[in-house]
Amino acid sequence: MCVLIVGSTALDSIRTPASENPRLLGGSASHAAVAASFFGPVKLVGVVGDDFPKSYLQLYRRHGIDLEGLQIRSGKTFHWSGEYELNMDNRRTLLTELGVFEAFSPHLPAAHKTSPFVLLANIAPSLQAQVLDQMQKPRFVVADTMDLWLNIALQELLALLKRVDAFVLNESEAHQLTKCTNMLHASRAIHRLGPKYVIIKKGHHGAMLSSPKGLFLAPAYPLKNVCDPTGAGDSFVGGMMGYLANAKGPIDKNLRRAMIYGSVIASFCCEGFGLHRTTKVKRAQIDHRVQELEAMTRF
Amino acid sequence: MCVLIVGSTALDSIRTPASENPRLLGGSASHAAVAASFFGPVKLVGVVGDDFPKSYLQLYRRHGIDLEGLQIRSGKTFHWSGEYELNMDNRRTLLTELGVFEAFSPHLPAAHKTSPFVLLANIAPSLQAQVLDQMQKPRFVVADTMDLWLNIALQELLALLKRVDAFVLNESEAHQLTKCTNMLHASRAIHRLGPKYVIIKKGHHGAMLSSPKGLFLAPAYPLKNVCDPTGAGDSFVGGMMGYLANAKGPIDKNLRRAMIYGSVIASFCCEGFGLHRTTKVKRAQIDHRVQELEAMTRF
Repeated sequence: MCVLIVGSTALDSIRTPASENPRLLGGSASHAAVAASFFGPVKLVGVVGDDFPKSYLQLYRRHGIDLEGLQIRSGKTFHWSGEYELNMDNRRTLLTELGVFEAFSPHLPAAHKTSPFVLLANIAPSLQAQVLDQMQKPRFVVADTMDLWLNIALQELLALLKRVDAFVLNESEAHQLTKCTNMLHASRAIHRLGPKYVIIKKGHHGAMLSSPKGLFLAPAYPLKNVCDPTGAGDSFVGGMMGYLANAKGPIDKNLRRAMIYGSVIASFCCEGFGLHRTTKVKRAQIDHRVQELEAMTRF
Repeated sequence: MCVLIVGSTALDSIRTPASENPRLLGGSASHAAVAASFFGPVKLVGVVGDDFPKSYLQLYRRHGIDLEGLQIRSGKTFHWSGEYELNMDNRRTLLTELGVFEAFSPHLPAAHKTSPFVLLANIAPSLQAQVLDQMQKPRFVVADTMDLWLNIALQELLALLKRVDAFVLNESEAHQLTKCTNMLHASRAIHRLGPKYVIIKKGHHGAMLSSPKGLFLAPAYPLKNVCDPTGAGDSFVGGMMGYLANAKGPIDKNLRRAMIYGSVIASFCCEGFGLHRTTKVKRAQIDHRVQELEAMTRF
């Protein structure tokens, strides 16, 4: 089944101690859409400027991503620039140019409104809500977020949480939102805000799902070399939704394995700058890492 | 089968923001011995002063721990005092009084020398080596350590590593020893120093085993409330050795489940000060948490 993904579509300039990588294809929706595309059809909703490279549109299309919902406006594409320190744990934002994103209002083509699976990737919660307003009874809605929205749009985010099935956030965001340092307490507090499923991401320590069927501890795939973790969280949630939308049976049954698939695609994401590595991956390589993770966790 | 455990036998005074707990039973060998005792016979090797409370000797005995190798010397028992901050992540040593430990030289009773399983719990590597010198062809030898020995007794530790089957250390110690921030690189470097099995502890993120049969990612049991993490690492390795010594079949086959048992006993350890919670646990409660961890990791 189809996954509709709304989020940022951006150009990322990423500096590490080893190299400089200007104007890579980035943004939460780009990473999530490519990750989801390994499993089935994806519809992308976002906005880019008239400076957006044609090669990036072709990249989306090569992955079978439907671009009918991608607006191309006159002006500049959202541009983010950041720098990583040697250990890859600390990221510093150098520059954020909103460009055409500043006036973005998602407008869904008719065919998009019936998508059964909806991923509200990281973007302002008011825009996530606008997308939900246009949907006709989606089967499963997941929202991602970032610390920025907890700081400047908390009320909008809280309103949104009442309308989603699952909420994905990282450990420090869960702490910020609930004031709980213990993630069991934090996930319980987040359930009370609305979502039936709470997924807390812990970077290279994996992710935790809290659901009516109990807890699930998803490992991260252990990597020998991390090149650029930008977009790993978006790849995780995109891969998860792609798997989920195309797996047979109830969501409760498939969500754990979906998280493992998301975790594996996130691992590929970290092995190259931007989408360099993810876009070169074959489905068989993804399945292989999932099998490896199974072998690494069996006891 | 029997596990011989050498390590520190101490009195711990532990302060947290919530309370003060003077002169608890502590030390690496105490935690490890109680943890191992849930599975079968344990022989403890260590030293205490004549101030050591009789009730603590009775506690050891209640757990079926053989005290023939525990020396009781005139003088003061090793006393450690530490303070935890609110988040339980940062620990500060307030006081270390070596007492009778300063002149300790482990001397094994005849019956101890043929123990098939040997746990060299955290203690000076020269003392760990003295125990090994007295053993007659043990089947499986595990060594634990701490950052102090990396700082002041590195050569002795490196000499010991050539003589052990498994080495257990935490992430920051692995980093300090190998200069590798990536734990896959670190474990490979440690294998080159001797041990066939390398186990890297990651606190509440679990532990990683690197072995000839590949990697194993052991989760930590998620706790709602952490009271006092002192001794959790010792409980982990003690529980692991206790399970291993009493499981049928090859070590390679049992080591993963042994780590899970160790992880569960470490979780109980964290729920009380000193050994308060661990000593009240029943085997059925341990088995129950192991089953819960199985359910939390299955996908």
